[in-house]
Amino acid sequence: MLYRQVYEYVVNQIERGDWNAGEKLPSVRQLALELDVNRLTVFKAYQHLKQEGKVEVKEKSGYYVASRHKPQVESDDSERHWKNKLSEIQRKPAIYQFSTAIIDPNLLPNLFLSDYVKQVFDIYPKLMGTYSTAQGDEELREHLSRYMVRKHRLQLTASELLITSGAQQAIDLIARTYIRPMDAIMVERPTYSAALDVFRAYGARFFAVDITPEGYDLEKVEQVMKQHRPRFFYMNPTFHNPTGYTVPSAQRKQLVELAERYRCLLIEDDAFNDMYFDQPPPPPLFSYDTEGWVVYIRSFCKYVAPGLRICAVMGRKSVIQPLISSKSLADNGTPLVNQKIFLHYFESDRMQQHLKKLRIALQIRRDIMEEELIQAQAPDWQWVSPKGGLYLWIKLPDGFPVTPYLDECLRQSVSFIPGTICDPMNAIDDRIRLCFSFVNESQLREGVRRLVTIARHF
Amino acid sequence: MLYRQVYEYVVNQIERGDWNAGEKLPSVRQLALELDVNRLTVFKAYQHLKQEGKVEVKEKSGYYVASRHKPQVESDDSERHWKNKLSEIQRKPAIYQFSTAIIDPNLLPNLFLSDYVKQVFDIYPKLMGTYSTAQGDEELREHLSRYMVRKHRLQLTASELLITSGAQQAIDLIARTYIRPMDAIMVERPTYSAALDVFRAYGARFFAVDITPEGYDLEKVEQVMKQHRPRFFYMNPTFHNPTGYTVPSAQRKQLVELAERYRCLLIEDDAFNDMYFDQPPPPPLFSYDTEGWVVYIRSFCKYVAPGLRICAVMGRKSVIQPLISSKSLADNGTPLVNQKIFLHYFESDRMQQHLKKLRIALQIRRDIMEEELIQAQAPDWQWVSPKGGLYLWIKLPDGFPVTPYLDECLRQSVSFIPGTICDPMNAIDDRIRLCFSFVNESQLREGVRRLVTIARHF
Repeated sequence: MLYRQVYEYVVNQIERGDWNAGEKLPSVRQLALELDVNRLTVFKAYQHLKQEGKVEVKEKSGYYVASRHKPQVESDDSERHWKNKLSEIQRKPAIYQFSTAIIDPNLLPNLFLSDYVKQVFDIYPKLMGTYSTAQGDEELREHLSRYMVRKHRLQLTASELLITSGAQQAIDLIARTYIRPMDAIMVERPTYSAALDVFRAYGARFFAVDITPEGYDLEKVEQVMKQHRPRFFYMNPTFHNPTGYTVPSAQRKQLVELAERYRCLLIEDDAFNDMYFDQPPPPPLFSYDTEGWVVYIRSFCKYVAPGLRICAVMGRKSVIQPLISSKSLADNGTPLVNQKIFLHYFESDRMQQHLKKLRIALQIRRDIMEEELIQAQAPDWQWVSPKGGLYLWIKLPDGFPVTPYLDECLRQSVSFIPGTICDPMNAIDDRIRLCFSFVNESQLREGVRRLVTIARHF
Repeated sequence: MLYRQVYEYVVNQIERGDWNAGEKLPSVRQLALELDVNRLTVFKAYQHLKQEGKVEVKEKSGYYVASRHKPQVESDDSERHWKNKLSEIQRKPAIYQFSTAIIDPNLLPNLFLSDYVKQVFDIYPKLMGTYSTAQGDEELREHLSRYMVRKHRLQLTASELLITSGAQQAIDLIARTYIRPMDAIMVERPTYSAALDVFRAYGARFFAVDITPEGYDLEKVEQVMKQHRPRFFYMNPTFHNPTGYTVPSAQRKQLVELAERYRCLLIEDDAFNDMYFDQPPPPPLFSYDTEGWVVYIRSFCKYVAPGLRICAVMGRKSVIQPLISSKSLADNGTPLVNQKIFLHYFESDRMQQHLKKLRIALQIRRDIMEEELIQAQAPDWQWVSPKGGLYLWIKLPDGFPVTPYLDECLRQSVSFIPGTICDPMNAIDDRIRLCFSFVNESQLREGVRRLVTIARHF
């Protein structure tokens, strides 16, 4: 990965105008000396820059800053400005929004929560003037740890819990704490693309294992752990994003044992644990963790109050402590207001009633989406019906041109997530993720019909 | 800075047990090949590890993992786990809290704000279920940009504004966006220590210029910019933290010109602009920025509603766009709830009335602190009376033992910030920062008396 640093160094020099268009670059040998790296590294960086047209080669003379190079452009799509590709697609306007993994706000207890908010300010009159600690409000951590102990029968204290601003921040803090450039990271294929974006930005190299309806190939998992010593395995074993698959119970304990044996952290991202349809999912991998090899990201807030952005990260002290330091540098703690509002709703009875209703509402939306796909006779589309979560992972016919299809769908106000951006290798080009949780029931039907109609033209 | 990466790589290998105590390390040549770096780099890293006792050398045989090396310890004080030193001191319990740069919640309009909150939920019934964009709520950005245009007569549109979760996050996003390892960064001496912690974590090398009651030595500023080409100059020119100094008007325009000439961003951190005592401070440097060389961090929330953690970052599109991408990766946007609550209070008339009262209250506290210091006849303590902000920057007699003094003060429930942690060179050992904004008036008197009494014993 070092060559990328050299690459960035050169790009920076050019963009800030220290090296101007047409100017000769330092020789490979010169720059290698200056930056204290191997010549081969500089050579690789120069080759990369040449391919991108940022640098030109003149025979027997050396490397030059390309004359057509424009100064820093906003739409710079190079790897230099790390982007959250998922959120870029989600930002596009669409009436039939199947890209956003968000629950329809109409299904959430908004009005009821607003009442709670008013109570909260009566209980804590100085809430607006008070900071939280970096680790998070103790009252909330106490409550969440007791909840987890009760519900999943696991060992947990409030000191083993960190409150973050959403799961995105949890992933980012884990990456900044545990990834150093050159580090190997293990991921599922496919996986949550915003996590890939974050890991990439910290300089990770990826090793992927496929996820299937039956879970992982454990031999393959062990092989990667043994051979590449990944710093962690980022996984989403329950109602997996984007596939909806759930890693079976039998594999979970074994995965924790593998993690211990090969000293590889498991980052268990569990955002939809409560969003099951027929029966609850198997216990989290975290419930088998005694030695501190699991970091458990449990964002309850997606289906309670997404607007509050409250997420809990759990783990033994050895893994949580460094994360608290990172959180302190990142923003000095999640706002106390949000934590207190969340707490007071979360401990109410209404919360469990809300969850029951929400599960049914989501199951109905899944059924409608599947029904419409079947009725519209989507040409050769296949999927495994998910037992929880928010999406269908659709297999399109081989060779189907997903990119122009997405462009056309967006033009006609339907959005979805293409498989490629969920793939660390950018190669899954015959899949799309459809999220059934955001649009209402009649829009769901119309949106699916449009999707299928447009597909027929490709 | 590359040697630090090699250093960290080795430490990681040892800590995760891949290389065990007593085991032979790869030779310098071997590791240089493996990591694709210069041998000298590996050598430097091994020397550093040797000095720290993590690695031992056996004559004519090579480097070995030190046998006394313990596996990952929590209280690890090495540079590996980056820490926010300031927040560590502030976390210590103390009745006479002179370390926290926070305004006494009793001076803030909490009750009034709580009423506003209730209104906000009536206006936006689905607020709890809605995400903000990564850049921040458009209504809030529109409002803040109009406010800035009106107040400081500068050019600004809503698209040139990014909402972050507090100034700490703004600093962190700027660092992660603009600092690459090996980059030179310019800072004031002394400066805000949590910013130093963040910059260090991203691998910056520091170049410092002194700040005095008269501002900076501009020749020195130019010299550093010319010689070291710093990526940015992090500055806090108005009621500076920790000194309270304000860079005079005459220097401000010149600084922006220097920034343009040497293509060095100015990061203008302006958290206490409205907290002046007799007259408003000079216009921000940002008001002279036309070419996009100033990033303006304006945290209004410290004196409005700190608990909401709303901060605005402003700059021309070329500097704001990359920050939005980073914000998207970091947490996908500040919670909308907080932004809407802040907005509705900020646009009220009560806000300006509140500010007027608050300025007087803070001025009274400054006067009390100075009065008590004079009455208690603090032995040889000197300071420049601040014209705004929250602190006194006290010069103690030469050779005064600040560290044992702080320990004793903490034991007696008085806290302050020692100068060393505000110094990029860790050398300012005869200064302390006393914050007069947090404790109430009678505690202020008692706290200062204790400070002085304890000092007499040293």
